[in-house]
Amino acid sequence: MKKILVLGAGRSASSLIRYLAENAPKHAWQVSVADAQKELVLQKIQSYPHLTAYDFDVFEADKAKKLIGEHDIVISLIPPALHIHVARYCLELGKNMLTASYISKEMQELDAEVKKKDLIFLNEIGLDPGIDHLSAMKILDHIRAEGAVVKSFKSFTGGLIAPESDNNPWHYKFTWNPQNVVLAGQGVAKYLENKQIKYIPYHQLFRRIEHFEVEGYGVFEGYANRDSLGYQSVYGLENIHTLLRGTLRKQNYCKAWDCFVQMGMTDNVTIMPTQNLTYQQFLKTFLPENTNDTLENTFINYLGIAQEKKTTILSQMTWLELFTDKNINYPKAEATPAQILQHILEQKWVLAPEDKDMIVMQHIINFEQAGDENEIISELVVIGEDNIHTAMAKTVGLPLGIACKLILAGEIKSRGVLMPIDAEMYEPVLKELEEYGVIFKERKTK
Amino acid sequence: MKKILVLGAGRSASSLIRYLAENAPKHAWQVSVADAQKELVLQKIQSYPHLTAYDFDVFEADKAKKLIGEHDIVISLIPPALHIHVARYCLELGKNMLTASYISKEMQELDAEVKKKDLIFLNEIGLDPGIDHLSAMKILDHIRAEGAVVKSFKSFTGGLIAPESDNNPWHYKFTWNPQNVVLAGQGVAKYLENKQIKYIPYHQLFRRIEHFEVEGYGVFEGYANRDSLGYQSVYGLENIHTLLRGTLRKQNYCKAWDCFVQMGMTDNVTIMPTQNLTYQQFLKTFLPENTNDTLENTFINYLGIAQEKKTTILSQMTWLELFTDKNINYPKAEATPAQILQHILEQKWVLAPEDKDMIVMQHIINFEQAGDENEIISELVVIGEDNIHTAMAKTVGLPLGIACKLILAGEIKSRGVLMPIDAEMYEPVLKELEEYGVIFKERKTK
Repeated sequence: MKKILVLGAGRSASSLIRYLAENAPKHAWQVSVADAQKELVLQKIQSYPHLTAYDFDVFEADKAKKLIGEHDIVISLIPPALHIHVARYCLELGKNMLTASYISKEMQELDAEVKKKDLIFLNEIGLDPGIDHLSAMKILDHIRAEGAVVKSFKSFTGGLIAPESDNNPWHYKFTWNPQNVVLAGQGVAKYLENKQIKYIPYHQLFRRIEHFEVEGYGVFEGYANRDSLGYQSVYGLENIHTLLRGTLRKQNYCKAWDCFVQMGMTDNVTIMPTQNLTYQQFLKTFLPENTNDTLENTFINYLGIAQEKKTTILSQMTWLELFTDKNINYPKAEATPAQILQHILEQKWVLAPEDKDMIVMQHIINFEQAGDENEIISELVVIGEDNIHTAMAKTVGLPLGIACKLILAGEIKSRGVLMPIDAEMYEPVLKELEEYGVIFKERKTK
Repeated sequence: MKKILVLGAGRSASSLIRYLAENAPKHAWQVSVADAQKELVLQKIQSYPHLTAYDFDVFEADKAKKLIGEHDIVISLIPPALHIHVARYCLELGKNMLTASYISKEMQELDAEVKKKDLIFLNEIGLDPGIDHLSAMKILDHIRAEGAVVKSFKSFTGGLIAPESDNNPWHYKFTWNPQNVVLAGQGVAKYLENKQIKYIPYHQLFRRIEHFEVEGYGVFEGYANRDSLGYQSVYGLENIHTLLRGTLRKQNYCKAWDCFVQMGMTDNVTIMPTQNLTYQQFLKTFLPENTNDTLENTFINYLGIAQEKKTTILSQMTWLELFTDKNINYPKAEATPAQILQHILEQKWVLAPEDKDMIVMQHIINFEQAGDENEIISELVVIGEDNIHTAMAKTVGLPLGIACKLILAGEIKSRGVLMPIDAEMYEPVLKELEEYGVIFKERKTK
């Protein structure tokens, strides 16, 4: 009997819990789920009577360590900044652990100790990061084994709304943490192009976009992630010319979102009063005063929106009711512009119970081989089941669940603070993911 | 014998030291000047053998308190963040003090204790803040006494280069702290227009400019300061419609500076390598890759610079050698973009020994009186003597010196943490400033 502890029962835990619950009898697993809100766990596990619910507070060290000590392996889905506390408990208690989050500096610093204790702390094993690493490394290892010299690697992932549930002019709904969507891209993005390091400040990010066609799903827009350069050595791409990781949105999203950025509405520092604030007043806060023209025209002219984009953007903003004198009804007396914007969007970008979300991932790899220039495009589209078993929950949760199974079965030989970039990881995980409809389509375009 | 202690002998201390030195015999003052670099003091006071030099480290509490304890009043010109330490020593030792800096939250919190000890901690008594308060409050008090209802108050100040020394296409040279110039405006600017609070994010700041004509000195551009609203109650303008404080530059500066902002070159967070970095490479870091066009055209097209602005902006950037493959020779192995940009500008925007700087201040006040709409424009232009006794040093140092004299003579009745907004302050200080050529010209334009 192996004992698995899942920490965190939020939005992205549903498919992981289902995977573990369904596989538990066959593998003789005992599965526990713990969260600060125990009711949330009880709700998530109600179809699985063989699972156990606990409450959990990462800062109650004694209680947390007791719970972890009673299990063999921990899957941490709690907020990323808190993983390090779980990691320290696991290190002390000699337990393996998994997260779907980027390896923090503090986590990396545990590597030597984790190795010394013969443990595995596997991180970045969700969707992005996660499936992106698995699928990219599989292709890269494969073509390099055949003598390819990789010149360019671009990879984009988006958590979007499926075509059948896409019924608003933004072609977007919240399928994960809304705050992360509103604050996405703040800071400076770094990438490599033609061997030149490039920096994109936040206020240019949603303008410096690339367009992609995904067969059967139309045109998408990609904007650069914070730091593409961090994966250069991890992927063994030291001599590459172009390296870019980014985020996907449906066509016409970025230009409209850029309006919020340009106006300053995504600022999360300034505190403004919200009492009796109307949509219109909120908008006017970010526009120069102009009593001689309509608010719509002032908005269009201030942002220098081109004639051909005007209709689309106005329809997006009108759909959000931004030009109305409706009260925003923000629940607190003051807030940052970004918090108010998030509140507005949360009324609108709602994933309805019958809505299906969609994950799209695309790698574009250019390489030289025997004097020829080649291009491979590898594409993944996953459609969610409903607003619980979303494509997001599935693509974050399944890699965690499968990797957990592999570790418990002793099939992972590496030790330390790990990322899923080796064949022992990507081969079995990608293979099993295919059984769940997570299937990459690869095409050679050159 | 009254003993005055000046802390800090940097760029802005020269005119203050001269004023105190020249007035010392008449008023029986003993003047001491202290700085972390004692040589700097010795150099600054070499023409004034009756002044005494000390070295001073604000963090050596015992030594600092001993020095302060031997004097009657302290004028602090050290970096603004350190005034609070001096203030705490002065409070403990029962000494009055003056600064030319904005009142910090910590400084404001000392108010009750300062009052209790019957002391004066006079702040914001330099140029901006300083002369702006004095001159604005004099007009506001005067017109309000005659029944005016003030509708709009706009005030702009700039530290610029005098026409006779203006020989570059930016019409700008560093006349004060270069870092403050490079980082100017970061954050969000707040102001009031038609009773609506307005926010301007940094990346719009140098686009949302106003133009002014200053008689005999041509056209200037003004951009908004960080927080104009902070002065609404201080100036008694609670019912005003429009309130804006800002910074002046010569025509064509803001549009070109905005290019740096738009590209991300003023970012002071990201660390980039600087070894063998050329001007051209630095520029290319912030531009999309384009091997099919010249760097100049890529720059112009990326920033969407209008045809009629193109020649001017290219001449400004070319004058900085930005398109060349010259090595930047940054003295350290890595730096932020803003630090590298500052280094580039410091090679170019040099105030030569014979150069004269220029201070320009303009208040534009609109008010209703007996049913009429009126406008007063009050203007100050001060030209520096040379690159030591700059207009900046004069307009920062003289108000400090004069206010110090008034406090020593017992002519200031207010107590506590003060700003110079009362008649007991603005009347005598503005009057004496006129003797030094700091003279406002007032005209009624409506």
